[in-house]
Amino acid sequence: MTDTARILVINPNSSELVTAAIDQEVEHFRALSPVRIDVRGTPGAPPGVSYQRDADDIAPMVRRIVSENEADAYVIACFSDPGLLGARETFPGKIILGCGENAILQALTEADQFGIISLSILSTYRQRRKIRMMGLADRYVGSQGIASNAVEATSPELLDRMLEAGQTLVARGADIVLTGCASMSHFREPLEERLGVRVIDPVGSAVSAAIGRIILKQGQRRGPVR
Amino acid sequence: MTDTARILVINPNSSELVTAAIDQEVEHFRALSPVRIDVRGTPGAPPGVSYQRDADDIAPMVRRIVSENEADAYVIACFSDPGLLGARETFPGKIILGCGENAILQALTEADQFGIISLSILSTYRQRRKIRMMGLADRYVGSQGIASNAVEATSPELLDRMLEAGQTLVARGADIVLTGCASMSHFREPLEERLGVRVIDPVGSAVSAAIGRIILKQGQRRGPVR
Amino acid sequence: MTDTARILVINPNSSELVTAAIDQEVEHFRALSPVRIDVRGTPGAPPGVSYQRDADDIAPMVRRIVSENEADAYVIACFSDPGLLGARETFPGKIILGCGENAILQALTEADQFGIISLSILSTYRQRRKIRMMGLADRYVGSQGIASNAVEATSPELLDRMLEAGQTLVARGADIVLTGCASMSHFREPLEERLGVRVIDPVGSAVSAAIGRIILKQGQRRGPVR
Amino acid sequence: MTDTARILVINPNSSELVTAAIDQEVEHFRALSPVRIDVRGTPGAPPGVSYQRDADDIAPMVRRIVSENEADAYVIACFSDPGLLGARETFPGKIILGCGENAILQALTEADQFGIISLSILSTYRQRRKIRMMGLADRYVGSQGIASNAVEATSPELLDRMLEAGQTLVARGADIVLTGCASMSHFREPLEERLGVRVIDPVGSAVSAAIGRIILKQGQRRGPVR
Amino acid sequence: MTDTARILVINPNSSELVTAAIDQEVEHFRALSPVRIDVRGTPGAPPGVSYQRDADDIAPMVRRIVSENEADAYVIACFSDPGLLGARETFPGKIILGCGENAILQALTEADQFGIISLSILSTYRQRRKIRMMGLADRYVGSQGIASNAVEATSPELLDRMLEAGQTLVARGADIVLTGCASMSHFREPLEERLGVRVIDPVGSAVSAAIGRIILKQGQRRGPVR
Amino acid sequence: MTDTARILVINPNSSELVTAAIDQEVEHFRALSPVRIDVRGTPGAPPGVSYQRDADDIAPMVRRIVSENEADAYVIACFSDPGLLGARETFPGKIILGCGENAILQALTEADQFGIISLSILSTYRQRRKIRMMGLADRYVGSQGIASNAVEATSPELLDRMLEAGQTLVARGADIVLTGCASMSHFREPLEERLGVRVIDPVGSAVSAAIGRIILKQGQRRGPVR
Repeated sequence: MTDTARILVINPNSSELVTAAIDQEVEHFRALSPVRIDVRGTPGAPPGVSYQRDADDIAPMVRRIVSENEADAYVIACFSDPGLLGARETFPGKIILGCGENAILQALTEADQFGIISLSILSTYRQRRKIRMMGLADRYVGSQGIASNAVEATSPELLDRMLEAGQTLVARGADIVLTGCASMSHFREPLEERLGVRVIDPVGSAVSAAIGRIILKQGQRRGPVR
Repeated sequence: MTDTARILVINPNSSELVTAAIDQEVEHFRALSPVRIDVRGTPGAPPGVSYQRDADDIAPMVRRIVSENEADAYVIACFSDPGLLGARETFPGKIILGCGENAILQALTEADQFGIISLSILSTYRQRRKIRMMGLADRYVGSQGIASNAVEATSPELLDRMLEAGQTLVARGADIVLTGCASMSHFREPLEERLGVRVIDPVGSAVSAAIGRIILKQGQRRGPVR
Repeated sequence: MTDTARILVINPNSSELVTAAIDQEVEHFRALSPVRIDVRGTPGAPPGVSYQRDADDIAPMVRRIVSENEADAYVIACFSDPGLLGARETFPGKIILGCGENAILQALTEADQFGIISLSILSTYRQRRKIRMMGLADRYVGSQGIASNAVEATSPELLDRMLEAGQTLVARGADIVLTGCASMSHFREPLEERLGVRVIDPVGSAVSAAIGRIILKQGQRRGPVR
Repeated sequence: MTDTARILVINPNSSELVTAAIDQEVEHFRALSPVRIDVRGTPGAPPGVSYQRDADDIAPMVRRIVSENEADAYVIACFSDPGLLGARETFPGKIILGCGENAILQALTEADQFGIISLSILSTYRQRRKIRMMGLADRYVGSQGIASNAVEATSPELLDRMLEAGQTLVARGADIVLTGCASMSHFREPLEERLGVRVIDPVGSAVSAAIGRIILKQGQRRGPVR
Repeated sequence: MTDTARILVINPNSSELVTAAIDQEVEHFRALSPVRIDVRGTPGAPPGVSYQRDADDIAPMVRRIVSENEADAYVIACFSDPGLLGARETFPGKIILGCGENAILQALTEADQFGIISLSILSTYRQRRKIRMMGLADRYVGSQGIASNAVEATSPELLDRMLEAGQTLVARGADIVLTGCASMSHFREPLEERLGVRVIDPVGSAVSAAIGRIILKQGQRRGPVR
Repeated sequence: MTDTARILVINPNSSELVTAAIDQEVEHFRALSPVRIDVRGTPGAPPGVSYQRDADDIAPMVRRIVSENEADAYVIACFSDPGLLGARETFPGKIILGCGENAILQALTEADQFGIISLSILSTYRQRRKIRMMGLADRYVGSQGIASNAVEATSPELLDRMLEAGQTLVARGADIVLTGCASMSHFREPLEERLGVRVIDPVGSAVSAAIGRIILKQGQRRGPVR
């Protein structure tokens, strides 16, 4: 099966720097993966999802990309998961995962309370709304912004600010910390070491989960073995 | 990597019939999986988890099995997830998934409200407590018992009772139904067809998720590709 | 002040029938209102918000209408409130009310538990997500669909189906019922009489609330009287 | 219509200083309002609601005032809303708004999380209970007391203490701050400027909302325009 | 100690029939109790708490009774617990238990989900508000009214209606049922037998809990034994 | 009756020091109690419940002690309540109280928000899960660990660390503090004095509550007095 199966990772913003960072992160999983993993950006989209209006503008574009590109699973590589609900509703047979949702759910299996390092205070509001919409407010200690954006987050220089935000979350009771942006994968390991708690990167989390989901769907489709 | 990696699926009860049913279900995923998947039972345990006391008796046994059997991921193949929390706390570096927890979290990504077909009214109480403990009560419409047990659930004759329970859950607002026992995998497809909503089987769901988690962990351990 | 102040009521779909129905409903309030009330549609939008994708497509259009049309308050005349959050974030100084949000909050002041008559099962999912996002799940008994759409809802022939849906909600514990679409204003009074509980129409509710908000803002801007 | 309609604002305590402060605040809205707005105190009541027992003693008095004074809408001008539930239940056809409830619901439309500056720690307990009773705990960061009372709050000298309390609430995640007493209207604007977040005064909020409600009721009563 | 200690059970309504019924119920516990148990009514109060306004009118009276009658513990013998919060706040050193609160908390230790047989639909609203105020909505399946009042509830003829209400609650998921009025003690046993789930009577529950609390307080006051 | 009734207090760990401390604490209540109170340890159990695995190992032992020792009520004298749910389910006619559960429910009647001084961060996780499982997250400000264990907690030297933890909880909004271990009884009074809020010790709380429950059961069993 796996020679034809593929995951399409959609960076829903137009920043090529971010798309490249995601592609680099995904490279870690390609050698291990039984399925092909492709990464693409979203030309015409804003350069990042800093505002609710960015997520609003992007949602229809993500749905169009899913519609026009055949794949066995789609990963929306942005913590805000723009277009996730609309795409799922429109293509009920397809596997479509959102980076943010997936990281949040994984966190529930690795610790008791999670916090999110967010790009900005406005992202914090979006994240709180998402957590409440998911029905998960009782496991969430909050988000802490670093006054940055998706493009800047590709730079290693943000580590200090991220560490400080992470420490704030731990002080508020977080047992696990999520990096709240798809460009932050390179901070996962150093943050984990310095914070002393598990750190989840949403890109790796969602891409590997998508592999599992393809196997689940193909295994179920086969019907009885006995 | 994957030639040495393996998942150990633990049937936490002592029923060989149930272990065999789980093994048969797992067979669907073996051909697709890049990692080996073994299934084992728990000699000395009760024949199923009908009561809280069964879960209590089994918890230390599961922890011992994890301790004594090297694997890259463990799946506790019982909806009650006996011993899951204790094993995770004791072996913080290991991947340990519970069938029930994993199915519940997957349900959140495929529908809005879930319901569970439970073996009995006592299982219903345990499931409610688990859902509240997970902080997920706002997404849960309830559990509906079929007055059965894990061994009996391996028989195809239960389908009518399961269908009736599923319809009750759908009437209460469930958009997705979970089979609340590891012996119910063979009911997934017929239930899905007849209920008209997605049905999740906890065994397949957890085993395929474990594959994703192993890939995540190995990908992350590799360090930078660039 | 009030000779220049105005409320712009935005029907966020492209159906002229729906826009006309909203305009007719608003007419009841024009004679009583100290501010002008205009109604407009959204050319190019879908004819109604039946799907999440409709709400997704419309959100940027609503924001653009707010941006391009000066008014003292805006009312998004669709129970799904498409674009509400993005518009509020983008224009923080403006008064922007959503029909759905406003009706839900008013319901909290008139009864203990509310239910919503929704156009369809898919609208039900959107409404549940909105209620959870608002943090109000404990006051909500659910939504009941009538398998219709915004255009069809302008017809009086739906009354029987709406009555049945309303009775289901009352049986589930609703002390107040909301009509979950901007085209349903003409059903408010007959439903209230036959159901025996208060019924809120989102259009009238939001338009009259917007009058109050304009007065609040202008009164506060004036500074001290003393 | 509006030449005969009127709102009766009830200061439910006996302090004439507080009644005068409320009347002064209401003056800002009189020129803008299409309905008459009267303010009255509650002779025989305690001078403020510092304790639960004050709210208990006042509740029957408020109900009596509503019973004995004809008006088109009533505003209970105390953040504790004493007697609100009893008056609403007893006079189901009347519009009766509580300052506290109304400010809380308005806050949900202007920001994500609210906090309340309360007069004292005992008021804090009452406010928490109210928020939970309203089902809104997930949007509430808490209350912060200033060790004062309703009479003292009419003095401008409290601003520093209020600012400090407001800053504490913002640090805990409040995006909007409510002044938790009807005597604090004069602090709204300076607090808003210095805190950098929206501040809601419950008196102005409830009085202007009552205007909207009267228009809603009269518009609906008129029946079809077409 | 116990020869001087006493519990004062306050029937907060003026019905002598209800006071006598409570006294009769308490008689079961007198022979077993190490402390004296007195019962008294509230002359001048309404004959029962059917409305929120009854609870409002009674609250100050209960506080006055506590103030004027020395006792080691007070039990407010009405499911609505009128005046409970005000009395506790005013007399922080005293043991004051409410029948409703106590029965609800005991239910949490005997079953998973509770339901309440209430006198009327208006009592249902008050009970929901109390449950939310207590923060317990996730354990509550609802209240079911029997269209009666406190005086009528002393009659054995209500059993059929109570049974029907109890069955409705069990069908909604209640594992334990509370009789929501102090006059219903004589129904506890027959209801328990016929419903097949535990039934809690609030009077016996609160009186026996008060004995425990007096012993707790006196034991703690004694200081170290060693 | 009371000459034959007895409460069995089970220290579910194997530390004789802890058993002796519990016995000493219980001594305060023996002279006041109409029923006999015995205390016993659990040979073969871990010396304390520091880990989830300790609670897991102990649960079946507690059930066995209940099974093999006749008593009118059982108190599990450990804040983690190991085996409580399994024992209750297995012996539905017996009165079985858990120290932790009982202290938490009592706290709800004495203050608005509670916090727990826990032995360690791992206990904190268990306590959070218990609170969520009980459905009480909205009344809980959190737990604060003192990096200790049950044996060490019998020593008076921990007071400073406990005071510091208690102050942290009060700063987070706790109006009442629970000592989260059965060995901490001797700290109750000094903590209460220094913290300025009520402090509940779980042992005394549960033992006195068990007295009330025995009286309730015996009074109800007697049948009608009239």
